[in-house]
Amino acid sequence: MKKYRVTFLPAHKSIEVAEGTSIAQAAQRTEIHINNLCGGEGVCGECKVQVLKGAVKTDAGPSAFFSKEQLEKGFVLACQSKITEDLEVEIPPESRLEGEQIMTGEAPADVQGGVSPEQRPESPIYSLKPLVRKIYLELPPPTLQDNITDIERVSRELRKKIGWHSFEISLPCLQHLSDTLRDYDWKITVTVVKDRGRYRIQKIEPLDTSSRNFGLAVDVGTTTVVAQLVDLKTGRVLGVEGTHNLQAQWGADVISRMVFACTKDGLHPLHEAVVKNIHSLIESLAKKSTVPAEDIHAIVAAGNTTMSHFLLGLTPCNIRLEPYVPTADVYPQILAGEIGIRINPRGVLETLPSVASYVGGDIVAGIVASGIADQPQVQGLIDIGTNGEIAIGNKEWLVCCSASAGPSFEGGGTRCGMRATKGAIEKVEISNGKVSYQTIGRARPLGICGSGLIDLIYELKRNGIIGSDGKFDRGRSDPRLTFEDNVPQYVIAQAAETETGEPVVFTEPDIANLIKSKGSIFAAIKSLIDYTGLSFDQLETFYVAGGFGNYLSVPKAVAIGLLPDIPKEKIKFIGNSSLTGARMALTSEEAFEKCLHVSRSMTNVELSNYPPYMDEYIAALFLPHTDRRLFPSVKD
Amino acid sequence: MKKYRVTFLPAHKSIEVAEGTSIAQAAQRTEIHINNLCGGEGVCGECKVQVLKGAVKTDAGPSAFFSKEQLEKGFVLACQSKITEDLEVEIPPESRLEGEQIMTGEAPADVQGGVSPEQRPESPIYSLKPLVRKIYLELPPPTLQDNITDIERVSRELRKKIGWHSFEISLPCLQHLSDTLRDYDWKITVTVVKDRGRYRIQKIEPLDTSSRNFGLAVDVGTTTVVAQLVDLKTGRVLGVEGTHNLQAQWGADVISRMVFACTKDGLHPLHEAVVKNIHSLIESLAKKSTVPAEDIHAIVAAGNTTMSHFLLGLTPCNIRLEPYVPTADVYPQILAGEIGIRINPRGVLETLPSVASYVGGDIVAGIVASGIADQPQVQGLIDIGTNGEIAIGNKEWLVCCSASAGPSFEGGGTRCGMRATKGAIEKVEISNGKVSYQTIGRARPLGICGSGLIDLIYELKRNGIIGSDGKFDRGRSDPRLTFEDNVPQYVIAQAAETETGEPVVFTEPDIANLIKSKGSIFAAIKSLIDYTGLSFDQLETFYVAGGFGNYLSVPKAVAIGLLPDIPKEKIKFIGNSSLTGARMALTSEEAFEKCLHVSRSMTNVELSNYPPYMDEYIAALFLPHTDRRLFPSVKD
Repeated sequence: MKKYRVTFLPAHKSIEVAEGTSIAQAAQRTEIHINNLCGGEGVCGECKVQVLKGAVKTDAGPSAFFSKEQLEKGFVLACQSKITEDLEVEIPPESRLEGEQIMTGEAPADVQGGVSPEQRPESPIYSLKPLVRKIYLELPPPTLQDNITDIERVSRELRKKIGWHSFEISLPCLQHLSDTLRDYDWKITVTVVKDRGRYRIQKIEPLDTSSRNFGLAVDVGTTTVVAQLVDLKTGRVLGVEGTHNLQAQWGADVISRMVFACTKDGLHPLHEAVVKNIHSLIESLAKKSTVPAEDIHAIVAAGNTTMSHFLLGLTPCNIRLEPYVPTADVYPQILAGEIGIRINPRGVLETLPSVASYVGGDIVAGIVASGIADQPQVQGLIDIGTNGEIAIGNKEWLVCCSASAGPSFEGGGTRCGMRATKGAIEKVEISNGKVSYQTIGRARPLGICGSGLIDLIYELKRNGIIGSDGKFDRGRSDPRLTFEDNVPQYVIAQAAETETGEPVVFTEPDIANLIKSKGSIFAAIKSLIDYTGLSFDQLETFYVAGGFGNYLSVPKAVAIGLLPDIPKEKIKFIGNSSLTGARMALTSEEAFEKCLHVSRSMTNVELSNYPPYMDEYIAALFLPHTDRRLFPSVKD
Repeated sequence: MKKYRVTFLPAHKSIEVAEGTSIAQAAQRTEIHINNLCGGEGVCGECKVQVLKGAVKTDAGPSAFFSKEQLEKGFVLACQSKITEDLEVEIPPESRLEGEQIMTGEAPADVQGGVSPEQRPESPIYSLKPLVRKIYLELPPPTLQDNITDIERVSRELRKKIGWHSFEISLPCLQHLSDTLRDYDWKITVTVVKDRGRYRIQKIEPLDTSSRNFGLAVDVGTTTVVAQLVDLKTGRVLGVEGTHNLQAQWGADVISRMVFACTKDGLHPLHEAVVKNIHSLIESLAKKSTVPAEDIHAIVAAGNTTMSHFLLGLTPCNIRLEPYVPTADVYPQILAGEIGIRINPRGVLETLPSVASYVGGDIVAGIVASGIADQPQVQGLIDIGTNGEIAIGNKEWLVCCSASAGPSFEGGGTRCGMRATKGAIEKVEISNGKVSYQTIGRARPLGICGSGLIDLIYELKRNGIIGSDGKFDRGRSDPRLTFEDNVPQYVIAQAAETETGEPVVFTEPDIANLIKSKGSIFAAIKSLIDYTGLSFDQLETFYVAGGFGNYLSVPKAVAIGLLPDIPKEKIKFIGNSSLTGARMALTSEEAFEKCLHVSRSMTNVELSNYPPYMDEYIAALFLPHTDRRLFPSVKD
């Protein structure tokens, strides 16, 4: 088979690949990350590249993703272009996967409505009882009057420290116990791991090493993977790092990755990608904190059901296909080494339990982090991404559901939509025909991210540029309202202002997509409230979790009918509550127990089997809603 | 270092060894097993060999173990003779470790008082719930109305079969679950292992393999290792094999081996020896039954505390030294492969729990096998070897103790004593000056084994040849009563009758040793009875376990004061109850639970800390006893 060389600009990385390889695959091998929302199907248009030298073979006809000028300049979709000769390829900034805002922590204080668990007065206080404890013991040596076995002597002393339990022990530990005790004057440090109802002695070391005990809380998100390094002796967070989920190579959304995972040998690379992500996080955390990976004894990971399956190397294929069956929703505690994660060789990995195919451990973690399951008041939690997961309940009961929101909020499905990375327009204001916007990193605009789109649709409506049905007022005289093939579009940034030299626009079909997304989310919230027999005003708090939520303007989200019209102070950002919950489960066995309890007791309402949902969805395809009584505070 | 060649006859095996190697060590390396009761200390006289060509260097002076004639013929102790030139060495039959009677099963029906668990009407009936179960499931495929996770579907069906439990699962099992279910039409066989309170799914196979599930019950004795192969689906015993404990190379008794194990790197070879023993048993059982080792999923081993430590590779050093502390008395369930035992890779090994340093899992097994812990009546159990372990109790309470009996009953410590192997005199009768005896294998006599010694001392006393103090009536005119260096001895077999051409004799010091042994055992029984506040007549049954017990004449054992003088029908042989108990624990989780319960609840009376014991011992150094009221049925 013939081989050709491809050189990527501006990185000046080059690679030799076999004939027929796609540009996207070639880029992947040089570790250049190109947007890939649809997983290489050629339908999202996010992987545009410019072929500077050479020509490619494309199966698809001329794409609707390009202007005539772009086509002339050699723009192609990287995933659809096969290499048949040597190439030089420029990857434009909007196609690069870099510099994204990663929600690494709890809600920052400077964000509107932001609330960290420590600030919440009603926050459940879980005591510091980490998943893995290192306990220093000075044992009384045996005498004729007190000659219980060595392991019983250790257990007896452990019970004084951590309560009455039986302690299991692995054979290698037991084999070294007697000599270690006697060689070190009965001074040892015992590593005890909690595993469901049991305590297991995992390691016995001479003398006092109890201060060398660290853990990792990981949020395995579809887009990003974030980890906190925690000192398990004190509970203190030593550092936090985030990185892009390397699985993005196989698609930005969960479904694309599942499709790939179900092809022959497809699961392994996706599993390996998460492991590699976690490795790189451990590496940078270890470097910055000077804690060696060897001293990390526990990892608690939270992710949606599919991510949890990928992490553990479980096939997610049956989650996607009717009747939507995961392999497991409660996952066994394993040695991290079993899936190739290099921490202490006896270090364990817990994956927080899921509730259903589309309500995962990240939501369970969020419920525990928010304290919903500990309070008598009814509260809600929403995490908006490609799916919107919603949970409502209190310490007595919990219900949840999941709705597919489509890619709009993450920058897909709209002409100039993009992820929340550098150059994305994140805020927009329109006043008297004047548009002002703000981009991430204060860079020249490349496109619009989710929060920008919410702003935009709100501003367009407020200014009467679009109606409640999301259609442009075509009779309006506005230089920014233009038409392309008779499709109206609104220009937010003129060609001259942008990084690409192309205008950033918002088309009528874009608006329709966004209304569908917000409609599906609101319909889910409404359906769940109705399912419980409650009304919105009975919600004491409505927590908004996750990266998207964090940059959202609450009044605008309510005004377009995405979030329910309840008093604004009741809507609170909770940040990366998946990570917070994972850290709580890592540092407190009570919090871990609570996660298990939530996963077991929460009722999942399957919206596809819940007839009222479709009616709610249709009713929500308006700005803010067909039933205006649901949004009393929103003015026309 | 110089090397010399040693050739052993009659096997004609030869080996080259370094100068200074002992003959015993050289023999060991050629896999010729020589008696070694004292562990190479030169004090038992059991390793006599004849040097036919060449000469050896001996540190010790001329030994009392040899007649003048033997010394002239070149007899030496193999363990005390260093090789300094090429040798040819004959190993006489009495020094070979072969053809020993191994108690492989329950008490045979033809033995007096023999009783198998099946015959005992009061026997506890434990239901067939093996440690490892293979359960065939035909699962209903999921539907939209019934779309629980795959593992929950399996657990739900398992609960219908084996009751309500949570089931843990290993990651590799979980990783293959979904595909196996769907590839094989939801027909699978699940291997479930019980581990204390938990059930673990150890393996998931396509279709019905439930009939391929076998287990091994092993009695790890100091002298012999015996194994039964059991079909875990039916509970049927498929075969039984016994072999000599290969640790005999390092001493016949437990103490000698402990001493060796506590030298540098001494533990490993002793651990390896047991593992090798079990391998050879698996091999021969597998061959005869055509069950592949791969289909063995569980092993339950019972042994004394030291043997259990050796089996698991735990140091027994602190058992031997004050304050006598074992590493553990309850042992973790492990994968058999962890200690190198090759059965199914997921197959487990359970070691039955001990009670104290000198009351091990073999006694716990015996108590469960006998049903003592299940009955309201007070019953007793004794296992006589180098130690005598005694337990008394009922379903409410249990007490036990252990007394050192010395090597007499196993053929050590007496001039012509030998193990119960071919050529050993096992029965003796003296009537009107005429001696008749019976040897094992009806061979020409080589020596006297334990049961023969009991017979002999009884017959000598009954015929007035010795008195109650064990001294010969020196005035008696009896051609068999001879003197060597003024020490009286009784000739049982004349030189002309024996295999060796040496007479088989019983000396006055031999009798003194035997009386000490029987005295220590009886004193222990008496002390334990007194400790409980009971009297002998309150014992409903007194079980005699083990190889020695099995060939014992009860009336004679009572008459010499070894066993208590209770109605003879109350004394019952129970055979290898360690093996029986191990098999019960293998096939019934209730029996296993009972073993754990017995080990936790039985009170061990430490005789060395129990002042009355020494008085009882002194009082018992008589035939039958100084207090004749304890033996009302015994006539002078």
